[in-house]
Amino acid sequence: MIGLPSATRPTDLADVRVTNLALVLRHVRAHAPCSRADIAAATGLNKATVSSLVTDLIARRLLRESGLVGSRIGRPATMLTLEGMPYAAIGIEVGPDHLTAVAVDFAGGRLLTWRRAAPAPSAPAGRTVAAVAALAARAVGKVTGQGRTVLGLTLGTADAAHDGLGAQVNRSLHDPSFEVVVARAADLAALAEQREGSHAGSDDLVHLRGGAGVTAGIIAGGRPLRGARGLAGSIGHLTVDPDGPRCDCGRRGCLDLSLGLPALFRAALPTDETPADWGAGVERLVTLARTGDAIAVAALAAAGARLGDAVRALADVLDPSVVLLGGALTPLAPWLVPAATARLDDRHVVVAASTVEPHAVALGGAALALGRLEAGALP
Amino acid sequence: MIGLPSATRPTDLADVRVTNLALVLRHVRAHAPCSRADIAAATGLNKATVSSLVTDLIARRLLRESGLVGSRIGRPATMLTLEGMPYAAIGIEVGPDHLTAVAVDFAGGRLLTWRRAAPAPSAPAGRTVAAVAALAARAVGKVTGQGRTVLGLTLGTADAAHDGLGAQVNRSLHDPSFEVVVARAADLAALAEQREGSHAGSDDLVHLRGGAGVTAGIIAGGRPLRGARGLAGSIGHLTVDPDGPRCDCGRRGCLDLSLGLPALFRAALPTDETPADWGAGVERLVTLARTGDAIAVAALAAAGARLGDAVRALADVLDPSVVLLGGALTPLAPWLVPAATARLDDRHVVVAASTVEPHAVALGGAALALGRLEAGALP
Repeated sequence: MIGLPSATRPTDLADVRVTNLALVLRHVRAHAPCSRADIAAATGLNKATVSSLVTDLIARRLLRESGLVGSRIGRPATMLTLEGMPYAAIGIEVGPDHLTAVAVDFAGGRLLTWRRAAPAPSAPAGRTVAAVAALAARAVGKVTGQGRTVLGLTLGTADAAHDGLGAQVNRSLHDPSFEVVVARAADLAALAEQREGSHAGSDDLVHLRGGAGVTAGIIAGGRPLRGARGLAGSIGHLTVDPDGPRCDCGRRGCLDLSLGLPALFRAALPTDETPADWGAGVERLVTLARTGDAIAVAALAAAGARLGDAVRALADVLDPSVVLLGGALTPLAPWLVPAATARLDDRHVVVAASTVEPHAVALGGAALALGRLEAGALP
Repeated sequence: MIGLPSATRPTDLADVRVTNLALVLRHVRAHAPCSRADIAAATGLNKATVSSLVTDLIARRLLRESGLVGSRIGRPATMLTLEGMPYAAIGIEVGPDHLTAVAVDFAGGRLLTWRRAAPAPSAPAGRTVAAVAALAARAVGKVTGQGRTVLGLTLGTADAAHDGLGAQVNRSLHDPSFEVVVARAADLAALAEQREGSHAGSDDLVHLRGGAGVTAGIIAGGRPLRGARGLAGSIGHLTVDPDGPRCDCGRRGCLDLSLGLPALFRAALPTDETPADWGAGVERLVTLARTGDAIAVAALAAAGARLGDAVRALADVLDPSVVLLGGALTPLAPWLVPAATARLDDRHVVVAASTVEPHAVALGGAALALGRLEAGALP
């Protein structure tokens, strides 16, 4: 009811054409296969305009004709679908344990999914950059070797503090024709949820991501919520347990101290166990919980209640339709969700495991580049 | 860095014209007086197009020429400014104690500011509707009597639960040619902050509004944040004092129980005092605090700390640049802000008294109608 979107730059005839080309692309992505008449009916564009736009998009190799379908009246209609062949987008998650690379074509087809061990945290910083650059070069080589043009490459990191990573990867790729972008992992994962998660298309969702700490990626009103300094969703220091242990920040009961992996391992694993890495620790925790280990189950229930308190705060501020648990929280969701949901009182928000893990961040990175195309940045 | 706005409907030549007309209007509002050449330079539109658009806007009586200004080189330029005369927008706050009506012209000039006592809460519901309808009819009569056309009328209520209020006021105005809209008070106040508050133009701000309870109006990424069910900013039940008194919602320490007026009055006023209404209670509280009354000052400091905890949560989730205190919190800000700020640790968010009160909601209501015009809904 409140507010209208407003363009902040002038438009001209070329913009009109681009806006309408992008509109047709988005319609076909959502409804393929569909006919020119379907597009005209759904968009309000007249049939001659749609025909001209479709001809243009076929010439740009973004759409293709996929065959004839008979209709009840009149002659059979030629159906249209997205053309996957010519273009690819690449996303790489730079995680604490692993590097994950994904490439997708414009039709949503998965071209590659690679997972590599990351250099140990103790290794020099240059090692991580080199490993990321090597993985990026191989992914680019793979899809260009298939004759595809890369639309963009996005690197997702736990925080945005990886200064220079994008520039270094860009340099190691010899200043390619596509853009290399670095973004926060949680923000990218939220894009992946919006594009292909269990609640795809929802205009108001949160991807709550576990790891060493907890971060939220937020879609609000259909768009990523960034904040004044790009720090929206930095909720690791939300107070959820005022009588809990003291945090490095000086306060008690920060969310990270209930739901971050170090805290979870301390509370749930036998005291003589130190997991080799985050992934191994989470696996061990799942095994213990599955076998009904009382300490692990109780620790997860307690963490789930604190998670519920955090979701309550997110619900009160943002009113999302769903909060999806990603990262290390996904495999733990069966034990966390019931305890969290019990804290939500009458708030109408669903809490569920993400269905785009373990590739959410990398997929979101690819989705970012595809989204630019569908917003009108046509190749 | 993430995401691009995307049009969801087709554009045509008429849309291009309207988009550019609206762009010129917004530029002149922000920079008047300015010349056609200024507009061309700032918008990227060519001078012939700007001349044509300006001619159109002058014919629609949205712009006018305001005189010549000499420039260092070349002939003097004709300056343009917004035309205030032909149009007016009306906002009415339906508050617990008062009804406040404001009308502004398109140039931002205030045409009327009226404040009336609201019917007592004990009065039948029909009395409030009748009082609002009478005030609306008088405001419409006043500005139309000046020869102005009304662009829109917005009613702001504490919650959106005033079902039927808009329809009844619309009926009592005999289905006028303009739209009658009902919106949440905090959402409208946030629009007023964005348009003419101390941090006008900020893309990420919160208007935190006190009264019987506390609500937030949120601007995120330059747009109102609404949520999946229009309930974003309903933060009265954020947990800020887990050892505090029990709330009707079943939990302890909800923000309303620290910062809502009933709780503030209970904590800060002498036990034998029962204020006649919210406004009288706030005035009494300010008087006590000014004279250094120990109980009142301590109660406001304690409430300010809980306010700070709520601002911390808002900052972590939304990352706004500023949180402005509105409604009953504005006159109490001198005592609340220091205690709140002390709770913010290293969060980069300003907490300050709103400068658009006591008319923020009514002004925001008028701003909503003006914003529709500037987004392209030209009269």
